Amino acid sequence: MDVLAEATRLKGEGNDVVSLAVGQPAHPAPRPALEAARKALEAGRIGYTDALGTAGLRKAIANYYEHRHAVSIDPARIAVTNGSSAGFNLTFLQFFVPGETVAISRPGYPAYRNILAALGLRVAEIPVGADTHYVLTPAAIEAWEQENGVGVDGVMVASPANPTGTVTAKADLKALADWCEARDAVFISDEIYHGLTFSGEETTALEVSDRAIVINSFSKYFCMTGWRVGWMVLPEDLVRPVECLSQSLYISAPELSQIAAEAAFDGIAEMEEVKAGYARNRELLARRLPELGLPLAAPMDGAFYALCDVSRFTNDSMAFARRMLRETFVAATPGRDFDPVEGHRLIRFSYAGSHSEMETALARMEAWLPEQG
Amino acid sequence: MDVLAEATRLKGEGNDVVSLAVGQPAHPAPRPALEAARKALEAGRIGYTDALGTAGLRKAIANYYEHRHAVSIDPARIAVTNGSSAGFNLTFLQFFVPGETVAISRPGYPAYRNILAALGLRVAEIPVGADTHYVLTPAAIEAWEQENGVGVDGVMVASPANPTGTVTAKADLKALADWCEARDAVFISDEIYHGLTFSGEETTALEVSDRAIVINSFSKYFCMTGWRVGWMVLPEDLVRPVECLSQSLYISAPELSQIAAEAAFDGIAEMEEVKAGYARNRELLARRLPELGLPLAAPMDGAFYALCDVSRFTNDSMAFARRMLRETFVAATPGRDFDPVEGHRLIRFSYAGSHSEMETALARMEAWLPEQG
Repeated sequence: MDVLAEATRLKGEGNDVVSLAVGQPAHPAPRPALEAARKALEAGRIGYTDALGTAGLRKAIANYYEHRHAVSIDPARIAVTNGSSAGFNLTFLQFFVPGETVAISRPGYPAYRNILAALGLRVAEIPVGADTHYVLTPAAIEAWEQENGVGVDGVMVASPANPTGTVTAKADLKALADWCEARDAVFISDEIYHGLTFSGEETTALEVSDRAIVINSFSKYFCMTGWRVGWMVLPEDLVRPVECLSQSLYISAPELSQIAAEAAFDGIAEMEEVKAGYARNRELLARRLPELGLPLAAPMDGAFYALCDVSRFTNDSMAFARRMLRETFVAATPGRDFDPVEGHRLIRFSYAGSHSEMETALARMEAWLPEQG
Repeated sequence: MDVLAEATRLKGEGNDVVSLAVGQPAHPAPRPALEAARKALEAGRIGYTDALGTAGLRKAIANYYEHRHAVSIDPARIAVTNGSSAGFNLTFLQFFVPGETVAISRPGYPAYRNILAALGLRVAEIPVGADTHYVLTPAAIEAWEQENGVGVDGVMVASPANPTGTVTAKADLKALADWCEARDAVFISDEIYHGLTFSGEETTALEVSDRAIVINSFSKYFCMTGWRVGWMVLPEDLVRPVECLSQSLYISAPELSQIAAEAAFDGIAEMEEVKAGYARNRELLARRLPELGLPLAAPMDGAFYALCDVSRFTNDSMAFARRMLRETFVAATPGRDFDPVEGHRLIRFSYAGSHSEMETALARMEAWLPEQG
């Protein structure tokens, strides 16, 4: 967050900042989404919708599961949310009581930890590494439980994952879901990077479990970050409590964004071109970063992140990122937020920007890195 | 919520439903807001903003305080939120710990109670009545504390208030703020109906306190419900923790809505016309509802609600509202959600709709009410 603020400040001063720090596509929303929003603006009032979202969008999301994953989901099980952020908040608030423990993988998305902590829940940060291809496993959770003398009450898994890019295979996802079901633990699948898998098979938890809570978003694949619209798929009996809580917490997701999101499904061809651009960026970073002395510290199978090991240059990735920003105007995210234990030797590069931004950043780093460490 | 769902269902079946149930203006956003949104859609990507909001919007909000209330607020003290709902959630989560007690008035906005309860906070529902013009007072809070043997850790007051329409005068607001400050309790002022005062003076807590937490929104006066954009004004030292929490809870408010909201301040003349329409509706309801046997149970000084006493017809306002909806297709909100104790004899009518809707609703009720009770 501090690097981001500093990058914004330097940019504001007129410096040519290249940001590989934010997990945000450079591309705008799909053309049909923009067109639908434009039409809605002309038509008139943008108002509250049902707390669970518009009927049209919920149906469109159900269709997407039918076509993409061949799973049939009743639209009544879908809750449209104020971005996936609201989905995380709703889930942690509704399905756990303070003092309970939720397992997440380390490295992982820092907002999980922050929201859980704010709500008085205990976070079990389970280290994942090369031995399991950075996938969270029941064995690793059980090892943590034994070590800490605490049982977990829920498991949250992201695939593709931020910042590791790990894609959890179907069998592994099923193993986690089954393990949770056997222990009556809540199983939560963060699928916000779905659509952005470059290696391996992409599985929704809905294919392996009827009890999973699935969280997704239009921000990443559909390039709609600033629209703040996402969704959850819930077991039928959990819809009503989430409806009541979301009504109090945020009334409804922005209507204009819901209208745009419904039309976004007509923009898949455009988004596949965007994805092809990420694939080119990914290839470039995967080749060049290790050549520059920054070996990959995670698989890069999906999402749009390269997590690198900076230990050849520094033991303090935060100071390193600040220095690199100040001296080269290239912004990347230090690992500490993703991993409080090992983050000092990690740095994350987002490749959601343009190819020329990647090239510029690499050229500046190539000139600058030899002077470091 | 159930009456709303039933109204939506009946409307969907093609019935001519007149809804006085939702606190939502019939008018669209100000023309300059719509125009700014249209331009932003053409310009390209809608992305994340700083968690505290765009610099332009924060500055425009500060200007508004300068011009309207002659109070000078540093834009750095303003946090743009995902609607005022996010403001309530952030406030309760950031400034209280589970088990602490927050005082609100009864009748009051049900989401306060629901969010507080979801976060494990105790709700002190302080009854307000005609003796104090439905204003919350330190004396009433102290009486509650004595009766319950519990001290309150925060006080939340809304002016104009939903559902009572009460406007809290400057001296009364100052008394509450001072009382809180003397006890080191958090003072929260919900000002989301500001701009919609028809009788009495409208005071922002910023005029009487440096420590107040002010919550406001573009939903009501600016007719931007579905845009989900509001703001908070915070004491300087509380900005940073709110920034960090909001970053985790929702990243940022929708960018398009922030762009539109900034331009909304250029639409004041248009909004004043809308307000004049509410004033005509208000006059009509204030005259006709008592004539129909539904005396006012609160002042109607501001916001856009008439809270009425239905005890001449029923002791169960929920059943009454359902029957009225089914038999006349007029929707109003039963009082139970606003007041768990006295709500059975209360019903709320919103006059944010068009004048002809008010006339239609009254005509149908005039024909139907004599057959009741």
